[in-house]
Amino acid sequence: MNCEILAVGTELLLGNTVNTNAADLSGLLSGLGINVFWHTVVGDNPKRLAEAVAIARSRADLIITTGGLGPTYDDLTKNVLAESFGRKLELHPEEAAFLKEWFARNATSKYTDNNLQQAYLPERCTVFHNDWGTAPGCAFEEGGVHVIMLPGPPRECLPMFKACAVPYLKKLSGDVIFSRQIMVFGMGESAIESLFRTEMEHMANPTLATYAKFGEVMLRVTAKAPTEAEAEAMCEPVVEKVRAVLGDKAYAVDIPNMETLGLRLLKEQGRTFSAAESLTGGLIGERFTALSGASAVYKGGAVTYCDEVKAAMLGIDPALIAQNGAVSFATAAAMAKGVRLAARTDIGLSATGLAGPDGDGVHPVGTVFVGLADGENVWVRELHLGTGRARVRQLAANHAFDMLRRYLQGLDVVPEQYVPAGK
Amino acid sequence: MNCEILAVGTELLLGNTVNTNAADLSGLLSGLGINVFWHTVVGDNPKRLAEAVAIARSRADLIITTGGLGPTYDDLTKNVLAESFGRKLELHPEEAAFLKEWFARNATSKYTDNNLQQAYLPERCTVFHNDWGTAPGCAFEEGGVHVIMLPGPPRECLPMFKACAVPYLKKLSGDVIFSRQIMVFGMGESAIESLFRTEMEHMANPTLATYAKFGEVMLRVTAKAPTEAEAEAMCEPVVEKVRAVLGDKAYAVDIPNMETLGLRLLKEQGRTFSAAESLTGGLIGERFTALSGASAVYKGGAVTYCDEVKAAMLGIDPALIAQNGAVSFATAAAMAKGVRLAARTDIGLSATGLAGPDGDGVHPVGTVFVGLADGENVWVRELHLGTGRARVRQLAANHAFDMLRRYLQGLDVVPEQYVPAGK
Repeated sequence: MNCEILAVGTELLLGNTVNTNAADLSGLLSGLGINVFWHTVVGDNPKRLAEAVAIARSRADLIITTGGLGPTYDDLTKNVLAESFGRKLELHPEEAAFLKEWFARNATSKYTDNNLQQAYLPERCTVFHNDWGTAPGCAFEEGGVHVIMLPGPPRECLPMFKACAVPYLKKLSGDVIFSRQIMVFGMGESAIESLFRTEMEHMANPTLATYAKFGEVMLRVTAKAPTEAEAEAMCEPVVEKVRAVLGDKAYAVDIPNMETLGLRLLKEQGRTFSAAESLTGGLIGERFTALSGASAVYKGGAVTYCDEVKAAMLGIDPALIAQNGAVSFATAAAMAKGVRLAARTDIGLSATGLAGPDGDGVHPVGTVFVGLADGENVWVRELHLGTGRARVRQLAANHAFDMLRRYLQGLDVVPEQYVPAGK
Repeated sequence: MNCEILAVGTELLLGNTVNTNAADLSGLLSGLGINVFWHTVVGDNPKRLAEAVAIARSRADLIITTGGLGPTYDDLTKNVLAESFGRKLELHPEEAAFLKEWFARNATSKYTDNNLQQAYLPERCTVFHNDWGTAPGCAFEEGGVHVIMLPGPPRECLPMFKACAVPYLKKLSGDVIFSRQIMVFGMGESAIESLFRTEMEHMANPTLATYAKFGEVMLRVTAKAPTEAEAEAMCEPVVEKVRAVLGDKAYAVDIPNMETLGLRLLKEQGRTFSAAESLTGGLIGERFTALSGASAVYKGGAVTYCDEVKAAMLGIDPALIAQNGAVSFATAAAMAKGVRLAARTDIGLSATGLAGPDGDGVHPVGTVFVGLADGENVWVRELHLGTGRARVRQLAANHAFDMLRRYLQGLDVVPEQYVPAGK
């Protein structure tokens, strides 16, 4: 099945909004074994939208639209698609009743007759009820082309895709598609590809593919079979082989990132942590607290963007910083120990370094020390992360979370590759 | 001029990479008065790329491609575009010499003959030299259609667009295009539109348009004239009128966000600040320290994700928290005062509240208190920001930066709209 994702919205063409839906849906579709060959964006203009639909219909057998399902005059996706495929729009009474009830409950939004437009959908379609907003989506097939319409806001589009479109698409294919994601930190995509080139090029079912994420790599194993149990069983030996080859660099299966793994392990083990952040400026805390439930295991920490705050908040001896410098092995160790005591947690993390663009005259930009302390030991990685302020900061936070998960998994906190030469 | 942005790269179709270039270039093109009507993404596939070029050529008079200019076998944008427009590729000796020199300087990358592919560009094109990477871009015109090719990585694509494509496009139009951006916080896009509907609908040169950013609105005034001075002079009265109508909600002109304004004002006034963050979990520090030069004015702070850390790091009396609750006016005030003293800064900021999804049984999710303290006074805003964990956190950080800039600009730190009823 070859798919085109067609986003509708002038805000995308003005550069006001980034089309994250296209990327997120593509990742999910690839997990279903569906090829996405085209992304297209057009504005809220009926003529250009109709032309784009005609092009999509000529080359794709699955068209997924996002956006333009709302109640205002410039929401015209349903009208244009229905006309293009020769279907009438008809009122779906259940959706109309839901809308009236929704507006009665949400006193801040006023119900107008416009809102009823949202309950009109193409005749003979499968209705996708919207549990995350008001505009329903839908799916239908016409002349061998499947059309799925989803709302534009990502907080509605993505859950509706998972809840409604995924079952619809799985039913279409006859076979069940099942995939597992192996997450890897500490090895680049090309190095991983060279280890699994044979499997990646020659296996047809299951398949193995790599996806580079920021400073990490995801390997996805996907199988098709008549039942989910069979597809899962087909994935298993490939997952095992990949894990065996990659060892402890493969940090988890089916967990989206290292902070989520850290949250899970900390909860299981009843441990808490805090963080002392210098070059990351709050990024470690910000990424961790983006996870709901973080407060059970993360107690807080200090952003110590100058030496005086390192001393005042973490109780670090100013002489230690004066002697070793703020960007040093010793300071990272003292920060991790200090924040652990100040926040009274089981584990303390720390990060100090040079994100750039300016250096300190001693170390090159990208020099970073990341530390972890428990009640007995302290570990520090010395890293040389290159340039790019935002990049260096994100990579430093990745290393902090990698140290945390390795500690919690009972692995070497500082594996050999991060031990500086001569130490 | 009607433009199509055509991104080339299988990584975009796999959902591995988000097409931020399309959004960023669209914003810049709209500032030049160029309409972007289509975004298209195709993979590294010569047939589908050639088809997409044929479609783009039939509907746009400016095609901007991003990606596929590198040295590997799947970088085929130049070949396909050259063939589509009937031009040969020829070696540009200056670019070839640059490449050889670049690889000699960068010992970590090995020069191979493949790399020389990057110096082949369509005959009779304008070469865009790449100061941010190795692959040059170019521009040419054929049959009334202008083609611009840019590299894919955003850190190369965007600076090259600004340095090379913008002057090329300005020369094409004959007139000079000049625009100014007025940034607004504290008023929604539709409220602003209703104030300026006449200007937005009826002015042709200069034009006035609104763009919603996260929790903020940007108004852009754009003028075309034979010289930059004339275009700038045409913008001026519109900028003045908008600022007069919006008052102190229009926080700056031609400054991208409130934290950048804060950094500038703090430097000018020789003041420093620190932040105590609860629900934002480090986001205030992270956003501010994303700006280079932040360390001159931001000393750090505390992420106090539990009550004990609020007490331990900020010296807040546990009885105050017990009596008022962690999510309260009093706690926000004590956090701002406490962090200011702990970090020894002129100003202390604070944020405490409920980002959700879980509430505390007392306040609804979205209840947030944001504080600012100097040596004499403390101000607190009580906010009800609705739902969505990431959204509530970003909006809370926006309010902290709005309080900071209003304080530094000598305005009411808590304008009337944020004073809770009955206080």
